[in-house]
Amino acid sequence: MASLFITFEGQEGAGKTTQIKLLYDYLLAKDADVILTREPGNDPVAEILRAVLKDPANAAMAKEGEVFLFAAARAIMVAGVIEPHLNKGGIVLCDRFVDSTTAYQGFGNKLDLGFINSINQVASRGIMPNITFLLQIDPSAGLARKAAYKQLDRIESRDISYHTAVKEGYDYLAAQHPNRIVTIDAALPPKTIHGMITERVDKLLEQS
Amino acid sequence: MASLFITFEGQEGAGKTTQIKLLYDYLLAKDADVILTREPGNDPVAEILRAVLKDPANAAMAKEGEVFLFAAARAIMVAGVIEPHLNKGGIVLCDRFVDSTTAYQGFGNKLDLGFINSINQVASRGIMPNITFLLQIDPSAGLARKAAYKQLDRIESRDISYHTAVKEGYDYLAAQHPNRIVTIDAALPPKTIHGMITERVDKLLEQS
Repeated sequence: MASLFITFEGQEGAGKTTQIKLLYDYLLAKDADVILTREPGNDPVAEILRAVLKDPANAAMAKEGEVFLFAAARAIMVAGVIEPHLNKGGIVLCDRFVDSTTAYQGFGNKLDLGFINSINQVASRGIMPNITFLLQIDPSAGLARKAAYKQLDRIESRDISYHTAVKEGYDYLAAQHPNRIVTIDAALPPKTIHGMITERVDKLLEQS
Repeated sequence: MASLFITFEGQEGAGKTTQIKLLYDYLLAKDADVILTREPGNDPVAEILRAVLKDPANAAMAKEGEVFLFAAARAIMVAGVIEPHLNKGGIVLCDRFVDSTTAYQGFGNKLDLGFINSINQVASRGIMPNITFLLQIDPSAGLARKAAYKQLDRIESRDISYHTAVKEGYDYLAAQHPNRIVTIDAALPPKTIHGMITERVDKLLEQS
């Protein structure tokens, strides 16, 4: 199989983590050379940054600091994990990528979108996903789902107006990139969603 | 006294830390409302980033990751420490600021200068020093000075061509900003340098 870069996006409680794991197992069962990564993370330094970004004790962190930390973690992961695996023809699944920065730091935190694009470009080294699955959910419903089983982290616990702005960001991205971003209703049964995803991925694998 | 933002720049072993402490004590003795900060640092998160950036174990870190980490630490320090102190009319002394990013990550690591300028602008929130003292030293001489009393950190231990490029970066900045950047020969006796610095600072304080 040829190299393929697949990202999952969506708001809290949309079921990204469940779906990316299902796809990972599906591809492993096909003997694909696939790796599962998450942002920020997958590297000792990036895991330190992940902890800093999620810690509610850092609630007062400047929004400019936040966006640079996400960019740093991404740059480290792209250079150390994603780019090498794609270069050897593998498949990379990534839980969140540049679209999250546009939605959360651009729309959510109201940072300039031109600036967000320029840091996304540098951090990703220009590597864009072949396909992005965007799981769409009403922000309140998603947060309620998530709060039912875990303590909300620094970003998750922001108020509803923030999460509504993030949703607008995702809607904007989906409209801007209709060929790359596949939108999926997160309220559908997980099995149905998994079937929709594997259908698209199989098609890409046949083409490549 | 009115607010004043003073930065110190220069290569390893130039004596920045000695001079900034001497100026700090000088201003304290005048009953100035002065704080001494260092980059990256002065905040729990920024201190974590400082440790990551200095740790030789992270030698392989992507240069894009490095520049975003410095920007994150700066953004956090500007928002949390520098801007508030200047807003209440205080004096801020900072050991390294945006010029270091231009010299080390722009010239040293050969990242695009337009991009460096844009992240410096966001990280600093547009707050530029009133005056910058650039202590100039031959890179080999400075590194030898430093290596004599400490283990060189991740960036210090890069090869001489890197440090020569950093010096070119500082020379470029000094030529670009002759009104803001005061160049000083670091080979002069520390007392002489301190006298040159206090003369300039006293003049600024009289004007403000």
